[in-house]
Amino acid sequence: MNTHFDERLDGGQPGRDQSEVLADLQQALPGMTLLHREEDLRPFECDGLSAYRALPMLVALPETLEQVETLLKRCRALGVPVVTRGAGTGLSGGAMPLSHGVLLVLSRFNRILEIDPEARTARVQPGVRNLAISEAASPYGLYYAPDPSSQIACSIGGNVAENAGGVHCLKYGLTVHNVIKVEVLTIEGEHMTLGSDALDAPGFDLLALFTGSEGMLGVVTEITVKLLPKPETAKVLMASFDDIEKAGNAVGAIIAAGIIPGGLEMMDNLAIRAAEDFIGAGYPVEAEAILLCELDGVEADVDDDCQTVRRVLEKAGATDIQQARDEAERALFWAGRKNAFPAVGRMSPDYYCMDGTIPRRELARVLKGIGDLGEAYGLRVANVFHAGDGNMHPLILFDANQPGEFERAEELGGRILELCVEVGGTITGEHGVGREKIHQMCVQFSPGELTTFRAAKRAFDPDELLNPGKNIPTPARCSEFRLTKSAGDAPAPTRAPESQG
Amino acid sequence: MNTHFDERLDGGQPGRDQSEVLADLQQALPGMTLLHREEDLRPFECDGLSAYRALPMLVALPETLEQVETLLKRCRALGVPVVTRGAGTGLSGGAMPLSHGVLLVLSRFNRILEIDPEARTARVQPGVRNLAISEAASPYGLYYAPDPSSQIACSIGGNVAENAGGVHCLKYGLTVHNVIKVEVLTIEGEHMTLGSDALDAPGFDLLALFTGSEGMLGVVTEITVKLLPKPETAKVLMASFDDIEKAGNAVGAIIAAGIIPGGLEMMDNLAIRAAEDFIGAGYPVEAEAILLCELDGVEADVDDDCQTVRRVLEKAGATDIQQARDEAERALFWAGRKNAFPAVGRMSPDYYCMDGTIPRRELARVLKGIGDLGEAYGLRVANVFHAGDGNMHPLILFDANQPGEFERAEELGGRILELCVEVGGTITGEHGVGREKIHQMCVQFSPGELTTFRAAKRAFDPDELLNPGKNIPTPARCSEFRLTKSAGDAPAPTRAPESQG
Repeated sequence: MNTHFDERLDGGQPGRDQSEVLADLQQALPGMTLLHREEDLRPFECDGLSAYRALPMLVALPETLEQVETLLKRCRALGVPVVTRGAGTGLSGGAMPLSHGVLLVLSRFNRILEIDPEARTARVQPGVRNLAISEAASPYGLYYAPDPSSQIACSIGGNVAENAGGVHCLKYGLTVHNVIKVEVLTIEGEHMTLGSDALDAPGFDLLALFTGSEGMLGVVTEITVKLLPKPETAKVLMASFDDIEKAGNAVGAIIAAGIIPGGLEMMDNLAIRAAEDFIGAGYPVEAEAILLCELDGVEADVDDDCQTVRRVLEKAGATDIQQARDEAERALFWAGRKNAFPAVGRMSPDYYCMDGTIPRRELARVLKGIGDLGEAYGLRVANVFHAGDGNMHPLILFDANQPGEFERAEELGGRILELCVEVGGTITGEHGVGREKIHQMCVQFSPGELTTFRAAKRAFDPDELLNPGKNIPTPARCSEFRLTKSAGDAPAPTRAPESQG
Repeated sequence: MNTHFDERLDGGQPGRDQSEVLADLQQALPGMTLLHREEDLRPFECDGLSAYRALPMLVALPETLEQVETLLKRCRALGVPVVTRGAGTGLSGGAMPLSHGVLLVLSRFNRILEIDPEARTARVQPGVRNLAISEAASPYGLYYAPDPSSQIACSIGGNVAENAGGVHCLKYGLTVHNVIKVEVLTIEGEHMTLGSDALDAPGFDLLALFTGSEGMLGVVTEITVKLLPKPETAKVLMASFDDIEKAGNAVGAIIAAGIIPGGLEMMDNLAIRAAEDFIGAGYPVEAEAILLCELDGVEADVDDDCQTVRRVLEKAGATDIQQARDEAERALFWAGRKNAFPAVGRMSPDYYCMDGTIPRRELARVLKGIGDLGEAYGLRVANVFHAGDGNMHPLILFDANQPGEFERAEELGGRILELCVEVGGTITGEHGVGREKIHQMCVQFSPGELTTFRAAKRAFDPDELLNPGKNIPTPARCSEFRLTKSAGDAPAPTRAPESQG
């Protein structure tokens, strides 16, 4: 449990006893599963970012919409905060429980309600796994495009909450670009439909506002997503570089050539060696950097694009370019990339994964900056990331058992995110702010901008009971952060952060 | 002037004299052009929907950001409403002035600040014309995709305010999908940056919330848009049908075949005859409906798609399919479509253009429903619209000089929009709500949903001074609408509506 983090700064403050809330909810919801014993609560103490933990006061596992509605109304009446959780694979602590709050788990809402092949949409409950949508759509030749690394396990409701990304988001967009309608319940238990089955909905775009709002505005109870036709073919090129900045510049050059690859990923030497050692993907271990560029679409088009990309890569200084000869080799090339995080994890007792996003033109400069910062802090940093999106995932290697090393890693991570902001980028690309980056929000945004965020939050949740302490910092939290930062003692989790997505 | 429309129901109520506000603003902003004489105000009395008119109290034509900031602060202090206007080509009365408000005209903010071919973005001021962006990007082989019919004249700031669409939005998205960052000023004169140059921005998606907010949340002062590479080639097919429902079903079948055309437009017999009579586009005047299907991309791909679409059209019962033989014929096919509104206008003293959007699968049913409703009301309705998007533009023909005919037209229009809502659609696709459809918002949304919209509005604009009476109805307005509707006397503009976009 993260004792340095003072929950009193976040609203939704402690006030009710567990026994009191339990009795109230048991009476109002006699049929609903409510967990309250410590051993039952333990599995829910963190999401995928296990460094940030707390036992929830209670865990609620509703099965019907009416139960969710009643639960929200009761929590509102009692002034008890509610944290909503999907599959718990998030990487920013967005679904971390509150010790004085109810954890609302939507895993029982796991039905695919409708696949409409003509409209190319799927209507699903929030607990449905991301990959299950594509599986259900597959008989119609369709799939759901956004593909977080955790897609086998993560839930679509969590994807909406975090505006999740993935390898294919460069071409096919983030979650927000692939959701057309959601049903939600407000903290008042009021039902709303945001978006529509039609092209556009009148009024403000509350659907986009909800997507990525990290459970702070309401509870998503049903989701309609777009489905896309499966590409006829996909081919992958692997280019080696003797200089990481050249690889960074090649990324911009590919896009500038008018090509949007299905995926465009970069790995630096440390990541290449780690992945090769772990997977044996056939990566060039002497290269300073590789780019993996996947092109998908109809056969003729893809062949054309492969030629164009090859020329761009050569001109950008690639020392070697290989095209996967068949599906097996293509899968192998990707296996190296997809297992790069655990592969790097094997090289070091601990690692810390960042998620900054920058304009593509700044890739070379920021990669160099990260290298310089790593040297200055005496820590190794592996880079493996969605280069086409400018979505960096620097992995800082450290050993939490070495005194002071975790603090150095955390400070280095903060410096890297600040570098991203400096060049016009942002502190998160696809993992969300959650609890992890709540302080960096005070850096990213002005006090006036944060006030507007909070006003938007209060428009939906006047008492700030939905997931307080995540995503949008309170003024009190930013003040405390600035004080401790100027005193050279930023608040830190007591355990080392880790991350595997 | 629209006398039936009681502005007292909308907030931002009358209170200050023109002379008082003028004196205050002249003192605070000695260098800024302020128009106040009736003859100077007259050109600003309406936007593209000329049925809704009012003289503004004052027109402000600032040239600098500082002037806009000061103006907003002064209006806030005085409690004077502000309506922001771009080029004034909107079709829903969104920029209609208020007699007790300042009209803030951004036409002098007309500079293209930066074209970045590598990032494929353009950074522009809000008064820049839509087409001027594509012209400036053209030397780099790039263009800005959303293309309202008014693109030669409409401003990008207005496009953002209305979330404008166009023929190519089926494939390339609405304005919201093509804007990555905006700079805004709040009514408090506070500066905010929404979105970023990077893939994603943390916190709530206020950029999407602002897009389409019709000037109710703040003033957009700078816009960064995505640019796309110009397609290598574009080809257009024209398919004839002897039955409008078959044409409607063909639309869904094309999309279901895995093809997203660059444009997919439908015209019914009345529209075909009108356009052919006006333009001589070579349209089949005996057909009950035609589809125009444009395919764009690389040559080989487009040829493949043309073959696929041909097969789908034949199977859907097309009686004839022609492919434009060259660029000249392609331009001619489109000229008929693009001039269909004025062409229909030649057939009737007046017409009223609707903008409902429906799920594609409901096209055939809704087209039949519109036909039945037209017969029941004894009025002709021409259909010419973005079929691929499900974005209908029924044009109701009438003669305002015939007693009662306008009222019948307006009632028919309302019935058509209600039909769109019934089948899961919405009351607007690309023209916005503005003043025109403010009452239909009371039909589209529940009181709880409207309360949430208004709470979001107040988060940005607590005194509701920004464009009151547009887009989001007040509870008072919906109550009045329900009362007058149940009394069989919906509030109506005194002049006949017309529309040319």
